[in-house]
Amino acid sequence: MQFLPTGLDRLANSLLYQATNLLDKMKAARLIDHALLAPDLTDQQLHNGLTLARQAGCYTACVHVVDVAAACRVLAGSKTGVCAVVGFPLGRQTTCLKALEAVEAFKNGATELDMVLHLGYLKSKRFQALQADIQTVVEATPAPLKVILETGYLTPAEITAACQIALAAGAKYVKTSTGFGPGGATVADVQLMRKTVGNRCGVKAAGGIATLKNLLQMVQAGADRIGTSRTKTILEELQC
Amino acid sequence: MQFLPTGLDRLANSLLYQATNLLDKMKAARLIDHALLAPDLTDQQLHNGLTLARQAGCYTACVHVVDVAAACRVLAGSKTGVCAVVGFPLGRQTTCLKALEAVEAFKNGATELDMVLHLGYLKSKRFQALQADIQTVVEATPAPLKVILETGYLTPAEITAACQIALAAGAKYVKTSTGFGPGGATVADVQLMRKTVGNRCGVKAAGGIATLKNLLQMVQAGADRIGTSRTKTILEELQC
Repeated sequence: MQFLPTGLDRLANSLLYQATNLLDKMKAARLIDHALLAPDLTDQQLHNGLTLARQAGCYTACVHVVDVAAACRVLAGSKTGVCAVVGFPLGRQTTCLKALEAVEAFKNGATELDMVLHLGYLKSKRFQALQADIQTVVEATPAPLKVILETGYLTPAEITAACQIALAAGAKYVKTSTGFGPGGATVADVQLMRKTVGNRCGVKAAGGIATLKNLLQMVQAGADRIGTSRTKTILEELQC
Repeated sequence: MQFLPTGLDRLANSLLYQATNLLDKMKAARLIDHALLAPDLTDQQLHNGLTLARQAGCYTACVHVVDVAAACRVLAGSKTGVCAVVGFPLGRQTTCLKALEAVEAFKNGATELDMVLHLGYLKSKRFQALQADIQTVVEATPAPLKVILETGYLTPAEITAACQIALAAGAKYVKTSTGFGPGGATVADVQLMRKTVGNRCGVKAAGGIATLKNLLQMVQAGADRIGTSRTKTILEELQC
């Protein structure tokens, strides 16, 4: 608790306070892809996490392709979809294998896909290869594709270029981070991504979002989807 | 430089000193899989790393499947092989996709494969599924398979179980870590892995091996292969 906030802090806290009052647990949950991506999750931990996502009414539960079938069983008949990660978390995979992974996920019931882009193509300025990599996966299934930029590796110019290429390739969202790379979502990166894509696609903030304040900051910065494994903690912070 | 080493330090340093004298750059390089696994490597950085592996005479260069063809071009006609990573770095992938990835790598020229095991199966004690996952990839290609345990997640009992299952599945090596997980190779883990597998398969230490001293400690603990991206630094520490 800060007793003497500075002017900016006071403004931010007041905006956050207002936003908190506008948000109830159900609305907040609909912003969230509940991340269940730790590689060492047991069957029981996965099941508990999926049950939490279902009970909270999260937009999706975000899982590895190998866990899509289990997720579909637990989430059947609920309003919570199944988001599968592709080329995760390094993105340095052949396009063919990424597409096969996407098809496998979709076939098993995934409703959305979060794919990591090929950072080497981006860093080497091989923009055509980068776009073809994304577009092939976009076209491999009817499921909307989010492109994970892994912003912790990128300069602002690279973030802008990646957003433009993802849009041109048909991505439905750009997403900041995997949660396994260097750094997570930042306000500045989310603002830049929203500014670049405008209203032409969504922006998902993920990586290090652990509190309600983090979530609200990301929404204010322009995110319309949040990836987090801390769903329980975040929703418990809301009054109703 | 320590001027007053304790007895144990003195003994270790003396053994390390002797080992250093027995080792020349060429012998050391033959222990090393030169890791080129950073997801944001540019084409130029990849090429430089492959050239270093070739010039030093490393046992292999360790790359992502998407980089196997480039690695084969640079390393053609040399004594340095191409090691491709599979299900990397989280290992939580469908068996089918791991096998396809292995086949793609082998088809493109990989001479060895390093695959991450399914940590969820291990933690859930689904040992049959764990063994089947490994065995399917072993049988998918003639290339020797190393199984990465990602020891940073594991208890000693889980390390022992994983080694036994990898052996039963036909793995040619067990390997400590990916370099992207929690913690890297430790002397205690390498000793335990060597004790468990005896001379029935190899032990590769990887993750955080940055100096000649690290390398020698791992060899003394029982490793017969070293994964490192710090090959240049390590070899420069040797006199000849």
